[in-house]
Amino acid sequence: MNPFEKLKEMFREFPGIGPRQAERFVYFLLYKEKNFRGELVKEIASLSNEVYQCSLCFRFFQSKNKTSACSICADTHRDTSLLMVVPKDVDFESIEKSHAYKGLYFILGGTASFSTKKQVPLRMKSLQSRLEKGAKEGLKELIIATSINPEGEHTQATIEDAIKDIVKKHNITISTLGKGLSTGAEIEYVDRETLESALKGRKPEILA
Amino acid sequence: MNPFEKLKEMFREFPGIGPRQAERFVYFLLYKEKNFRGELVKEIASLSNEVYQCSLCFRFFQSKNKTSACSICADTHRDTSLLMVVPKDVDFESIEKSHAYKGLYFILGGTASFSTKKQVPLRMKSLQSRLEKGAKEGLKELIIATSINPEGEHTQATIEDAIKDIVKKHNITISTLGKGLSTGAEIEYVDRETLESALKGRKPEILA
Amino acid sequence: MNPFEKLKEMFREFPGIGPRQAERFVYFLLYKEKNFRGELVKEIASLSNEVYQCSLCFRFFQSKNKTSACSICADTHRDTSLLMVVPKDVDFESIEKSHAYKGLYFILGGTASFSTKKQVPLRMKSLQSRLEKGAKEGLKELIIATSINPEGEHTQATIEDAIKDIVKKHNITISTLGKGLSTGAEIEYVDRETLESALKGRKPEILA
Amino acid sequence: MNPFEKLKEMFREFPGIGPRQAERFVYFLLYKEKNFRGELVKEIASLSNEVYQCSLCFRFFQSKNKTSACSICADTHRDTSLLMVVPKDVDFESIEKSHAYKGLYFILGGTASFSTKKQVPLRMKSLQSRLEKGAKEGLKELIIATSINPEGEHTQATIEDAIKDIVKKHNITISTLGKGLSTGAEIEYVDRETLESALKGRKPEILA
Repeated sequence: MNPFEKLKEMFREFPGIGPRQAERFVYFLLYKEKNFRGELVKEIASLSNEVYQCSLCFRFFQSKNKTSACSICADTHRDTSLLMVVPKDVDFESIEKSHAYKGLYFILGGTASFSTKKQVPLRMKSLQSRLEKGAKEGLKELIIATSINPEGEHTQATIEDAIKDIVKKHNITISTLGKGLSTGAEIEYVDRETLESALKGRKPEILA
Repeated sequence: MNPFEKLKEMFREFPGIGPRQAERFVYFLLYKEKNFRGELVKEIASLSNEVYQCSLCFRFFQSKNKTSACSICADTHRDTSLLMVVPKDVDFESIEKSHAYKGLYFILGGTASFSTKKQVPLRMKSLQSRLEKGAKEGLKELIIATSINPEGEHTQATIEDAIKDIVKKHNITISTLGKGLSTGAEIEYVDRETLESALKGRKPEILA
Repeated sequence: MNPFEKLKEMFREFPGIGPRQAERFVYFLLYKEKNFRGELVKEIASLSNEVYQCSLCFRFFQSKNKTSACSICADTHRDTSLLMVVPKDVDFESIEKSHAYKGLYFILGGTASFSTKKQVPLRMKSLQSRLEKGAKEGLKELIIATSINPEGEHTQATIEDAIKDIVKKHNITISTLGKGLSTGAEIEYVDRETLESALKGRKPEILA
Repeated sequence: MNPFEKLKEMFREFPGIGPRQAERFVYFLLYKEKNFRGELVKEIASLSNEVYQCSLCFRFFQSKNKTSACSICADTHRDTSLLMVVPKDVDFESIEKSHAYKGLYFILGGTASFSTKKQVPLRMKSLQSRLEKGAKEGLKELIIATSINPEGEHTQATIEDAIKDIVKKHNITISTLGKGLSTGAEIEYVDRETLESALKGRKPEILA
């Protein structure tokens, strides 16, 4: 196959990229100065050399030296009484960027699928080991942070099923993220379940 | 003006209707059997005859006989210790349809605008009277149910400002709807503020 | 049924209107001054009284007095050598508004459906009579103006099939609208068929 | 800067890619097998080694050996009496894929901008030379294929201005693509100018 076509085909595998945009990408690279392509090649190659997967939380991280634990798992200032399990690296990124959480993480590697065919291998055994290890180091609460949709709820149930014996044995609390009105929610358009949660979880206002 | 054009122009005033759709409405009516038009005319006319505004909650309601209180305000099974203030009738409809709330309502008549020019007259004085009346009848909590956006927050602050003396005097709690993950929320895309609320409001799971 | 709900249900029948917008329409009418509703009722009612269907082109038109031919069919300044058949009134409106056409029209009453179940009755017999009548009055060309999609092409074929004997007998030319680049067309995104038509139909430029 | 962040930033420069998708691209590459990254790197690098710009039409093409003319310009079966000028490589691709055109091409390098600041350098001098050369080899018609929008029309006018003396001298016709209804056009929604072109360019139907 023509290398033009080959590159187009590879870009089509990128998430959310159709044939048109894949073609535009090739022309974009062609019209860019040679330097940009050189830089891009170098950075993509470095993903194979300088990227490691953390042995504790399983997220990918970049490091000049081979190390087994990522900077967060190795950080002694994080709250080791809290562990949050999230399906994917991008979920972890989203939460870590919010600066609202100071505990540790565990990346499950995907969501539980309803179809038995499409089942992605999830790191349930590794999660169990992580909990055993955590129990010895003061872990008090496991936060399951999955999306509020059928897949997320199925993933939550799958996790709970896999770890219930361990958390009971070690007296670890399981919690889920609070439901209610999200930023931007308009009363007129809010669905019934969200309204119920928002009403149950209403907060007293302290007036000045 | 041609009556065709006149009708098109009137439909253009309907919320969300542009010139194309206004024209389609006219043709839709033309092609519909005469019965449909007769029915429609009757129902629209009845809005002037059989629709009243509740003297307590200020929502519009339909009734064969002139009455001052709507069916909800007159319903002795509703929880009179709870009053919820919402900006508009459509907000009330949304909450009432969820069947998650059993207290009473108050329709403010709109949201507080940041622009002094566009200020819609809100029923603040009527809300104050409603609270005074409620205090005598066991009102314990006022729920302010506004949208989670700048306008909603501004409206909430405006309400609080207008009623703080009355609620203090009568020892009425003010509360707002709980924030957190809405139905459909995906961890990857949730904003910082919602994540913070969801983390603070996390709920322990009771495992079987 | 509650008249509120009744009106909502009627608005839901309007083209492109879902339950939310139907509800907003009712509140819009409630909040509008009584005058607006009165005016609207009057105009809708007038559709039953002052609207007639042209006996020649079959379009709806408004008139104070009952007449059989619409203002366009009765206009002696229109070019009677040209007749354009369009599926719907809205198609007629679109073309008449362009001021690009000076001939007469015929409204077919819909498009030919591929499904035998959904078949709308089209005015093929009336079109045949209209052509016979036209032939006596100098009709030279029938323009079939259907959309460039499978339904439009099927409608065009259905029309041609129904009238081929008549047009041959009277030596009437059949024509279709020219294909090519539409306003806003971008070379990069134009489909193959349109490009072919645009290339075949290319126009010499006269330079100053 | 962290190499993760560096790669995200580079993907953000890709056409149509925002920060979220750039991040997803990085994770996509991380999760892909090492082979994919190796292949991608090889193909991107090959753009610098095996891609040349045609000295006649100025399009980029890939070749194992350095050659000055691309496969189309060198193809003796193409119709040398026709030259089509298009703004960009993607326009060329679109037309060549349609298989509707058998002449030669010239890539202008962009569109003429209305803003004097954003002016991209267009290959007007090279186009003039190409026409001079073509005139000696039987060129009869120059097709200007620009989009039907203000930018495209401005580009067309700019080209015509630059070449009018040459085409007059050599008796070369200038033409533009035909306007009319595009695939998918619906009569109800077609704009005035397109309707005018479609009416002027209407085609007689030959009935079986």
